[in-house]
Amino acid sequence: MMSSHGMPSLPPVRPLDRTLESALRARIDGKAKPPGSLGRIEDLAIRLGLIWYPSEPRAGASMLLVFAGDHGLTQEGVSQYPSEVTAAMVRTFLGGRATANAFAAAAGVDIRVVDMGVAADLPDHPGLIGAKVRRGTGNAAREPAMSPDEASAALMRGCDLAVEAIRGGADCIAIGEMGIGNTASAALLLHRLAPAALDLCIGLGAGQDDTGLARKRAALERAAARSDATAPFEVLCEFGGLEIAGMVGAVIGAASERRPVIVDGFISSAAALVAIRLCPAARDYCIFAHRSSERGHGILLDALDATPLFDLALRLGEGTGAVLAVPLVRAAARLLSDVATLDDVLSGKI
Amino acid sequence: MMSSHGMPSLPPVRPLDRTLESALRARIDGKAKPPGSLGRIEDLAIRLGLIWYPSEPRAGASMLLVFAGDHGLTQEGVSQYPSEVTAAMVRTFLGGRATANAFAAAAGVDIRVVDMGVAADLPDHPGLIGAKVRRGTGNAAREPAMSPDEASAALMRGCDLAVEAIRGGADCIAIGEMGIGNTASAALLLHRLAPAALDLCIGLGAGQDDTGLARKRAALERAAARSDATAPFEVLCEFGGLEIAGMVGAVIGAASERRPVIVDGFISSAAALVAIRLCPAARDYCIFAHRSSERGHGILLDALDATPLFDLALRLGEGTGAVLAVPLVRAAARLLSDVATLDDVLSGKI
Repeated sequence: MMSSHGMPSLPPVRPLDRTLESALRARIDGKAKPPGSLGRIEDLAIRLGLIWYPSEPRAGASMLLVFAGDHGLTQEGVSQYPSEVTAAMVRTFLGGRATANAFAAAAGVDIRVVDMGVAADLPDHPGLIGAKVRRGTGNAAREPAMSPDEASAALMRGCDLAVEAIRGGADCIAIGEMGIGNTASAALLLHRLAPAALDLCIGLGAGQDDTGLARKRAALERAAARSDATAPFEVLCEFGGLEIAGMVGAVIGAASERRPVIVDGFISSAAALVAIRLCPAARDYCIFAHRSSERGHGILLDALDATPLFDLALRLGEGTGAVLAVPLVRAAARLLSDVATLDDVLSGKI
Repeated sequence: MMSSHGMPSLPPVRPLDRTLESALRARIDGKAKPPGSLGRIEDLAIRLGLIWYPSEPRAGASMLLVFAGDHGLTQEGVSQYPSEVTAAMVRTFLGGRATANAFAAAAGVDIRVVDMGVAADLPDHPGLIGAKVRRGTGNAAREPAMSPDEASAALMRGCDLAVEAIRGGADCIAIGEMGIGNTASAALLLHRLAPAALDLCIGLGAGQDDTGLARKRAALERAAARSDATAPFEVLCEFGGLEIAGMVGAVIGAASERRPVIVDGFISSAAALVAIRLCPAARDYCIFAHRSSERGHGILLDALDATPLFDLALRLGEGTGAVLAVPLVRAAARLLSDVATLDDVLSGKI
């Protein structure tokens, strides 16, 4: 679905019905435990209850979608790693040997990799979803990263994949990414959409020395000066990337299906920011897993009024932090479904 | 095993060999990810590597031991819940309907309940380990909570249970507790062993109004005034509880088997404090899961120089926070065992 200007026609997202919140709170307060004693897991359980209403929340079957894409911005030296590492890491995911595989296995989460725009040919593989829109974005320091049609295609494909995963049985979606140079792209999105001073949005990414950081900053200043876009879809087109557009779609797709989407670190959160600016009701479906140690993440979380579940000083991406949050979501769902009431306990019914 | 004075004869605990740390750090730095990008999970992986050396760490099979016991201190009104709730909650665990069951299921952790000193007859049940030393502790405001022989028996039984669980296949142990009144007991242990001003160690426990808190404070002042013990085993005997003594033993037992023990909140941490004061080498085997919102937990963690993995404002106990940390421990173990090296990725071996 695409409008005449390339702007995607998004599926409707129903806002949560907050009037149901007090009933859920009362239900949790009636459980066999002191009221409030499960802190943020109780808040999470309430949100799951609102998201899933009128069904009971579940989170047993979870799927991590890792969106991969390359960035023309790497031509400006914004990353210390060459663009080819994106494809090499995708092969590592497919071989089951990346950190995301290890953490997904640790948390009992399925994983699929989505080639949204890797600048290489990738092998056919049951774990790889081929959805390449183009071979890497344009160099945003010199030109728009994507045309509206390209951004829309990536976004709609990400949306469809989340919807398909949920209709195929996933109770929740986790999103992650692989794309050399994508902290640079995410910094531009944050700068323009929070909005926030560009300098505060720029961090070390996968690791930069002082010279590399200065180069990254200069490239992003050129990119920002090139366009004064502030509308979310236009900002996405200008600054990329393809994998980020895919995650924007996945957030909206999961929300449209009334299922939670667990957001990983800085880049995934930048995608969530775009999604929420396009579709504010999607905010309620986002669970922010962790506070990344990438510099701009705090500003980004503040812009979304989001408090992540934990802070383990992660800054890898790949969805590694998101999958570690899945057991917490499962615990919250089971608080609602599994735990006895205090009345049942005290009356000896258990 | 018991010495002539009732003081338990503890199994030896081998300190970690820290000279191996740099090799483990180098191994993790060689993985296919930016160095340091997994933050605290890397630190955890190194600790697991040291604990398990020369074997490779695993954490797939984990067991939560929930130690239950009653407290004579409840006669002083230190809790707003009656002592009978301990037995009712044990029955709820056995019925699979407590929060600990729900969270353990969410995290894929086995659970066993240990009756260390519940003041009630409990049914035979495959999930219940009968290890009752006595029916609740003495009222520590008036008399020692346990005799040295009783404390030693509870401690050694806890130790044996952890050893048996590990020899039976558990890769790590999580500890939790159920015992109405046990934040009062834990506050006294903390006060005497940190040491810290008693008032700072006293919190709301399962929930207290101002009157209840004043009553709790007065009772604990009487208990503290009754004994000037500062030696860890003597402090344990004076202030209890039976379930805490069992957890002290479980910490030492797991450490003696060179396996990690995941410590839950305030009361479990108080048990770890006693264990570490008795056997300082046990410290390295303890993984502190979370920062509880019970008031004294911060002081306790500081006394042990421990930084927990997360803070979800939990204050339930039962091991609920400890089991939520198990997936993080699994992820750390798999970082070592599963993730490819950067060399393998870049040379195309993956």
